[in-house]
Amino acid sequence: MIAPLPAHLVAEAVTRTLAEDLGLSGDITSQACIPAEKTARLAMVSRKPGVIAGLQLAVEAFRQVDPAITVSLHKADGDTLAPKDVVLTAEGNARAILAAERTALNFAGRMAGVATLTRAYVDAVAGTKATIVCTRKTTPGLRAFEKHAVLCGGGRNHRFGLFDAVLIKDNHIGVAGGIVPALRAAKAANGHLVKIEIEVDSLAQLDEVIAEGADVVLLDNMDAATLGAAVAKVKAGRPAMLTEASGGVNLQTVTGIAKAGVDLISVGALTHSAPVLDLGLDIAVQ
Amino acid sequence: MIAPLPAHLVAEAVTRTLAEDLGLSGDITSQACIPAEKTARLAMVSRKPGVIAGLQLAVEAFRQVDPAITVSLHKADGDTLAPKDVVLTAEGNARAILAAERTALNFAGRMAGVATLTRAYVDAVAGTKATIVCTRKTTPGLRAFEKHAVLCGGGRNHRFGLFDAVLIKDNHIGVAGGIVPALRAAKAANGHLVKIEIEVDSLAQLDEVIAEGADVVLLDNMDAATLGAAVAKVKAGRPAMLTEASGGVNLQTVTGIAKAGVDLISVGALTHSAPVLDLGLDIAVQ
Amino acid sequence: MIAPLPAHLVAEAVTRTLAEDLGLSGDITSQACIPAEKTARLAMVSRKPGVIAGLQLAVEAFRQVDPAITVSLHKADGDTLAPKDVVLTAEGNARAILAAERTALNFAGRMAGVATLTRAYVDAVAGTKATIVCTRKTTPGLRAFEKHAVLCGGGRNHRFGLFDAVLIKDNHIGVAGGIVPALRAAKAANGHLVKIEIEVDSLAQLDEVIAEGADVVLLDNMDAATLGAAVAKVKAGRPAMLTEASGGVNLQTVTGIAKAGVDLISVGALTHSAPVLDLGLDIAVQ
Amino acid sequence: MIAPLPAHLVAEAVTRTLAEDLGLSGDITSQACIPAEKTARLAMVSRKPGVIAGLQLAVEAFRQVDPAITVSLHKADGDTLAPKDVVLTAEGNARAILAAERTALNFAGRMAGVATLTRAYVDAVAGTKATIVCTRKTTPGLRAFEKHAVLCGGGRNHRFGLFDAVLIKDNHIGVAGGIVPALRAAKAANGHLVKIEIEVDSLAQLDEVIAEGADVVLLDNMDAATLGAAVAKVKAGRPAMLTEASGGVNLQTVTGIAKAGVDLISVGALTHSAPVLDLGLDIAVQ
Amino acid sequence: MIAPLPAHLVAEAVTRTLAEDLGLSGDITSQACIPAEKTARLAMVSRKPGVIAGLQLAVEAFRQVDPAITVSLHKADGDTLAPKDVVLTAEGNARAILAAERTALNFAGRMAGVATLTRAYVDAVAGTKATIVCTRKTTPGLRAFEKHAVLCGGGRNHRFGLFDAVLIKDNHIGVAGGIVPALRAAKAANGHLVKIEIEVDSLAQLDEVIAEGADVVLLDNMDAATLGAAVAKVKAGRPAMLTEASGGVNLQTVTGIAKAGVDLISVGALTHSAPVLDLGLDIAVQ
Amino acid sequence: MIAPLPAHLVAEAVTRTLAEDLGLSGDITSQACIPAEKTARLAMVSRKPGVIAGLQLAVEAFRQVDPAITVSLHKADGDTLAPKDVVLTAEGNARAILAAERTALNFAGRMAGVATLTRAYVDAVAGTKATIVCTRKTTPGLRAFEKHAVLCGGGRNHRFGLFDAVLIKDNHIGVAGGIVPALRAAKAANGHLVKIEIEVDSLAQLDEVIAEGADVVLLDNMDAATLGAAVAKVKAGRPAMLTEASGGVNLQTVTGIAKAGVDLISVGALTHSAPVLDLGLDIAVQ
Repeated sequence: MIAPLPAHLVAEAVTRTLAEDLGLSGDITSQACIPAEKTARLAMVSRKPGVIAGLQLAVEAFRQVDPAITVSLHKADGDTLAPKDVVLTAEGNARAILAAERTALNFAGRMAGVATLTRAYVDAVAGTKATIVCTRKTTPGLRAFEKHAVLCGGGRNHRFGLFDAVLIKDNHIGVAGGIVPALRAAKAANGHLVKIEIEVDSLAQLDEVIAEGADVVLLDNMDAATLGAAVAKVKAGRPAMLTEASGGVNLQTVTGIAKAGVDLISVGALTHSAPVLDLGLDIAVQ
Repeated sequence: MIAPLPAHLVAEAVTRTLAEDLGLSGDITSQACIPAEKTARLAMVSRKPGVIAGLQLAVEAFRQVDPAITVSLHKADGDTLAPKDVVLTAEGNARAILAAERTALNFAGRMAGVATLTRAYVDAVAGTKATIVCTRKTTPGLRAFEKHAVLCGGGRNHRFGLFDAVLIKDNHIGVAGGIVPALRAAKAANGHLVKIEIEVDSLAQLDEVIAEGADVVLLDNMDAATLGAAVAKVKAGRPAMLTEASGGVNLQTVTGIAKAGVDLISVGALTHSAPVLDLGLDIAVQ
Repeated sequence: MIAPLPAHLVAEAVTRTLAEDLGLSGDITSQACIPAEKTARLAMVSRKPGVIAGLQLAVEAFRQVDPAITVSLHKADGDTLAPKDVVLTAEGNARAILAAERTALNFAGRMAGVATLTRAYVDAVAGTKATIVCTRKTTPGLRAFEKHAVLCGGGRNHRFGLFDAVLIKDNHIGVAGGIVPALRAAKAANGHLVKIEIEVDSLAQLDEVIAEGADVVLLDNMDAATLGAAVAKVKAGRPAMLTEASGGVNLQTVTGIAKAGVDLISVGALTHSAPVLDLGLDIAVQ
Repeated sequence: MIAPLPAHLVAEAVTRTLAEDLGLSGDITSQACIPAEKTARLAMVSRKPGVIAGLQLAVEAFRQVDPAITVSLHKADGDTLAPKDVVLTAEGNARAILAAERTALNFAGRMAGVATLTRAYVDAVAGTKATIVCTRKTTPGLRAFEKHAVLCGGGRNHRFGLFDAVLIKDNHIGVAGGIVPALRAAKAANGHLVKIEIEVDSLAQLDEVIAEGADVVLLDNMDAATLGAAVAKVKAGRPAMLTEASGGVNLQTVTGIAKAGVDLISVGALTHSAPVLDLGLDIAVQ
Repeated sequence: MIAPLPAHLVAEAVTRTLAEDLGLSGDITSQACIPAEKTARLAMVSRKPGVIAGLQLAVEAFRQVDPAITVSLHKADGDTLAPKDVVLTAEGNARAILAAERTALNFAGRMAGVATLTRAYVDAVAGTKATIVCTRKTTPGLRAFEKHAVLCGGGRNHRFGLFDAVLIKDNHIGVAGGIVPALRAAKAANGHLVKIEIEVDSLAQLDEVIAEGADVVLLDNMDAATLGAAVAKVKAGRPAMLTEASGGVNLQTVTGIAKAGVDLISVGALTHSAPVLDLGLDIAVQ
Repeated sequence: MIAPLPAHLVAEAVTRTLAEDLGLSGDITSQACIPAEKTARLAMVSRKPGVIAGLQLAVEAFRQVDPAITVSLHKADGDTLAPKDVVLTAEGNARAILAAERTALNFAGRMAGVATLTRAYVDAVAGTKATIVCTRKTTPGLRAFEKHAVLCGGGRNHRFGLFDAVLIKDNHIGVAGGIVPALRAAKAANGHLVKIEIEVDSLAQLDEVIAEGADVVLLDNMDAATLGAAVAKVKAGRPAMLTEASGGVNLQTVTGIAKAGVDLISVGALTHSAPVLDLGLDIAVQ
């Protein structure tokens, strides 16, 4: 249901990461201690409940080290994990399995961490109309994967980067000479398939946006009461415009924010501060 | 005091990360709203106490977007931050400053997060002989930077990867036919500048290691009492061998583990689960 | 006014193209015939009227071969050229100038060709509300530059690729089970900053789109009368939705299509069949 | 008969071009509207008469997106196409087919355009001894493919770039101190497997070349009568030297130039201004 | 027994080297003279006695040019060759075999050259406790392969580069303020899995090293008598410390140096001046 | 006089080689022992007579590690060295100088080795008309640099690779059905700027080549008397054709081969078996 990641992105990231771990000499411990012909069987197992993500990256790690390793997926990205659930098994050359396992786990653990935290936010706004979305506060080099992990957790994606949608912030407004000229400049400079969002921090600013029109308005750092008033204004004045809340969002506050009636809540922590999901590896060399 | 990161690693990681954010079209908001000739001044400011790291990466982000931006560092990697401390300032073309700021912040926030968490562990073992070291549980693509951040926080580095030191684990021991043959195979296969560490999970195994000799012994998942007994055995039987504790280490347990007398304590959380340090940006477009 | 191209895209494309021309041995003619210390002065001059584009690429070609070459721009991207207008001059080491000139010209001539053809279409719809936009029928490897050249010619850009906006075509409609389920699937699967366009080839299909709603409707291969009827339907039923015409557009038909009242006209020929603009080089070795 | 393109060149160009179209998110329309398990059948069909080229690139596009797609070639590079001829068919995962089709078509249409235009020139000189050759006025990044397309159209290739043959032009002659010293410098500086061509624009210059000797003489911008006189001079004075005409060559003039008896006619337009050949895609999702 | 080289290193080096030989046009001789469908059989045969190495690189060369070529290895890296021994055979498309053979041979001949010279040194110290090790004086771009070839010849590897072990030389000692502060700085700055070697050129310096302790001491440019005295001092004062001799080592002197009792002898010539092993190719096109 | 190497080739090779030596951690010895602010002065000095080459690569090594290092060249590529001649000096940050010196030396020593050996061959044929040329038996990854070093030593270059000239060997002749059809196929398939050489191993074969014509004939493995006869045949029958001798060429045989009157002598040993030139480094840390 969630589209797989583009294969070349997966391949490049895994290549880069294996290079960190294997250097120019490879796994010198296994080369010394494990005969070249030995085989092994590995199971990746959850140790905590959570949501799995990043399995393509894990599979690619084994494939790159040795295409002859056979990997079986027992779970799919987005599946819920209970402790002791087997996520994947891999079987093949023992040295190759041992050379790939840390890379596979480092990817899967992190992506599952993002998916699991996202799920917690999504669950916290269940029953409201609010959608949880991520931000550009992603781990350098891993944005596409973390955006995918957010989808696996039940969230949705904000713009990918600076290039695929307009988000007018206070600095842009200041330089452009106000909300209206900023919005008009953005509309004038961009093609018909680019959406325009604008950030406001007061109801007065919101009135200007409602008057001029935008695809989305970002209500920044407003308390729940102000958010409610803002949503009401939009509903009255420009009902097709979406409302997004940001700032001060955590698992304690998110339910209240959602109940204010916003369409979207953006949460930086999904990608900047999710701890890894604890996944373990059981390895049997044969 | 801490050696700077190799410049080409910094350049490559920043190039890759800017590409995620700028795509093939660049910052379409600023292109629309900010005249090409405008300049801006940016200050990166701490919002929470912590330890800064990753400043080379932040500087490089500004440099790559526009070499004419002047960046001034007010803090150095490893410095302690109080809230509202200015970390760096940047001045130059406004579009360029805005195109680079998120990348700079995503790097610095994450590296500072690792350094800050490392400092907490280091502080927790103050007064003991234990050194806090990191593991291979690093963020894919960022290992060199996270290892550096651990140094900034006062920790030390374990082996970089599978290629630069031997770490014999249970699977290697099993396949090699025991601790003694595994150690002998490792010594036989590796050059004279490669250190050899071996993991044991019982005092019986430790006896074998002491008899045969290794550079370091990793005492895995032992309670404090067992760790103490292990340290005593090593002191008596092979005093030049270092002892490392791992498994079940967190900020609650680390002091006790350190007091058992081990030389080293390895902590995966330093790199796999550190939240970002909250750094903010004040930007004034002129 | 038109934002410059991202510097790293320009650098990569020029590097790749210089490599085609210089191979591993460089310019063996000039190495033989031109002493190493000679300097030269070059002027790029228009031989036909047109619109210039791609000057960043031309400048970068000289810069990569020898950073000591000084290049002066006498025109800016988007400027109209009369025959004999000087576009740029370059001065520096003669071997370097000669090694770079063909690459500079191959880029500038092609981009100016796209800009010039775009301008012809833009002029042909002057006085109507129609905007000329490009398509994904671009030269492999040069999409970002050709999209920029379209802007230089006064056109606007359609989506950059498959990744930054939804365009539902007949196959998608067929598989999804109709216009309404296709639109709903697209809205459900995409974030709030993604625009959705859908292609229809009949007024009956258009009615379904008007009923369900989309950001843009693409009216494919309709004659002027049908286009006029379609525009009227949209104006009546969903006035915020944009209309785009495509198919059978050429310099003979475009004015009539524009007069039908559509907002946008997409023209593949802008990028797939524009001849180069004839630019010449006057070189004086000193 | 025409050698296939080096596989790594094809792979790199296709990778780069797919990246333009798929970005980091892939085909977001098909991901939303086409179930992951659907298959499709595609036929690439000519809509105009012409000569096909670039099929390796088209095949590679499908292969890179999904190696499981089966592609059948119904035509080979260099074959003549009548309207409605099926060029290739592809069958496989529907999302993958749709993600690859535009890249496949952009390559094949352009290469076929070059081959088709070349064939027109070749046909125009039929019955003379003249060979049609291309120039260095190629599309940036696509030189190897366009040179191949020229072969597919029945033309031949000039030097690949500045590195594989000497072509002495007026600037080189001027700096070297005349035709004779320029030729001698070129012979002295280059190995025994490098051919030397020199450009002249008068019969007086030609006499000097005949006296000193070169592999090829380029007769630049001469009218047919002067070309005839030049060919006669060469036949008399240095019959092993080849003659090449350039400048002012188009489909109206090329026959007359060929009848002047030159061995070669170089035509920049083959690669700098060929329109795409109109190829269509019939796609059936199953 | 000797671990294979990391596959991605092999692939990259072969890609780079094939590109040197094939350029953008491929093997233009075979394209002209050998029909596309012809097959060939190739045998790589030793013409001189020696030790083979680098076979992975040779195999990869054939594989990259055409994965359908079948390569059979008749020898393994490290095997001794007599003249006329068949090392490998390859069978497949004739053009592909001819395009790959020079690259395969250039790699194998060079690596076998290093292995063969190493074997000569190893044989010269037979019966002593000395191990022959290589240095950082390797061919640019080929370090990993030459280190592997040294293993194939029976030698051992020194540190891989500047990054994986400490080697304190005279400049470091001078700046650090002496042997003791240099050793202490090195121990203080590096993790517990980094070994420390220090170079001394006198027995007085050696005394300081023995007092302070290091993993290895490098005895530079000492005559056999001094080496013997140094070994005796180490045996007496710090028996766990290894001794390495360097400087003035050649096939005439190495036996004497070994008899002085050192553990290791490092030889730059292994990698900086080994002639290729003479390997020939017998090719039959069918 | 010898054209400098293309800058991007130099940069890439140095980047790759520095990466081998510095890894992801850099020079851990100097980081520990040399304070960050120390400066150093380095002199590269010849220890043996020879010919220097590869200085661009040495300079680039220092530049890449630290652009602030100032390098002064005291010799130019192709200059003769006496023992103790200073080749270059470098001054700058001490850690940077020490990180770059081995890479600089590994390049310069090897290239100087090739140039020095070439010079020996060139000197051995002084007074004859023979030119010494290299072959494709080059070090993988270093072909452009070794071809340049051959020029520095006074030799000339053969074709660069398989792509830039035709060299018909016995296998091609066999498959093509003889010398005449092979030559005709090569002429038919290649453009007018490609030279054609053919290898013969008997005077009977030579007669066929003389009858049909080629640019160069390679006389393989003939003794001096046969070579003399071959040269006489060519002089009589096709005086414009060049003659090249190969096979069994060494410093003992080369003078006799040259005296047989051939135009060219190709020597594989120039690039496949040249020992490094012994260059030393004097470093003073300040």
